[in-house]
Amino acid sequence: MMTNALKLGLLEELIQALRCLPGVGPKSASRMAYHLLQSKREQGATLAKALENALRNVKHCNLCHTLTERELCALCESTKRRDDVLCVVAMASDIQTIEMTGEFNGRYFVLKGLLSPLDGIGPNELALDKLIARAKEGTIKEIILALSPTSEGDATVHYISHALNDSLVVITRLAYGIPIGGELEYMDRNTVGRAFRARASINELV
Amino acid sequence: MMTNALKLGLLEELIQALRCLPGVGPKSASRMAYHLLQSKREQGATLAKALENALRNVKHCNLCHTLTERELCALCESTKRRDDVLCVVAMASDIQTIEMTGEFNGRYFVLKGLLSPLDGIGPNELALDKLIARAKEGTIKEIILALSPTSEGDATVHYISHALNDSLVVITRLAYGIPIGGELEYMDRNTVGRAFRARASINELV
Repeated sequence: MMTNALKLGLLEELIQALRCLPGVGPKSASRMAYHLLQSKREQGATLAKALENALRNVKHCNLCHTLTERELCALCESTKRRDDVLCVVAMASDIQTIEMTGEFNGRYFVLKGLLSPLDGIGPNELALDKLIARAKEGTIKEIILALSPTSEGDATVHYISHALNDSLVVITRLAYGIPIGGELEYMDRNTVGRAFRARASINELV
Repeated sequence: MMTNALKLGLLEELIQALRCLPGVGPKSASRMAYHLLQSKREQGATLAKALENALRNVKHCNLCHTLTERELCALCESTKRRDDVLCVVAMASDIQTIEMTGEFNGRYFVLKGLLSPLDGIGPNELALDKLIARAKEGTIKEIILALSPTSEGDATVHYISHALNDSLVVITRLAYGIPIGGELEYMDRNTVGRAFRARASINELV
């Protein structure tokens, strides 16, 4: 009875709407809504406008599906990048992670997810056909699958390598192993096992 | 150079704007923005609209400063609540926390923060004068200070009790002690010390 009297239509609606953000449950959504309405009204208005603007004007690159305000993203348009290596990532945000390493100077392709039959994500929900068509065009010599080593990532790797079985494209994946700075005693058995099997000469590692 | 090519004006603006949310740092803001633009566009549009609507129509209650869509909130307008007990909280969201206990049937007052000289929050930034004027009107017999037992909370309690020194209003605060379900070995010394001094007969506790 008491709590009913407290229900504010628009406040409740805002709390509900905030829950679409990743990692935001009912408690943080409520905290965010009160915070915005009580003391961050100007920033809240800026956020609403920035979100609307981005939704209206940021779309997917026609070629690689990353986020861009134009038809083609800067990385696809660039004349300074190699055309014969394609790095396949699950999410547009993964591109930034790889760009930060400075290790790669080819093109990207965003799958927009990973295969996950349990969540109803099959090959048709991803951009797999487009990737395979592009791989078969002849320009690409190597496809680097930069996907997370989870069961969804593994299923996606399997699907792609199977589909490109009869092509001449070399398919590679990121190395598995112990992350830099990671402590051996906190690593799971699978990771240590993989790292053990893939051990390398000390000179190679430098 | 590479990372510059990736900078999208509107995407960056959205990431910046998301950082006004409490507990959201650069990494989560970036994750949220990509998530919204890549796979939650409809929910993102709903969020932008809900935020705009709430900012436009949810304001502060004229009497107690909680959030409401009307001039007076439902709790201030209710004829079923006692007028002689006033519960003072820092944030509008604290009202919900107290209402959920079912222990209180009086009125509320939202300070909109706690005294914090280091952050530039003095008595003028809070609704302290209004609270003190209301306390001196004569209707209120007890003021319950439901403030967090932090240094800011303590400073605020001190300020209010000092200002109402010469009035007949009884000022109380929430009990300090060990939270239900809390493990003694994880409690800090102050909490255990306070709980020890405020120990109660077993019969009282039932």
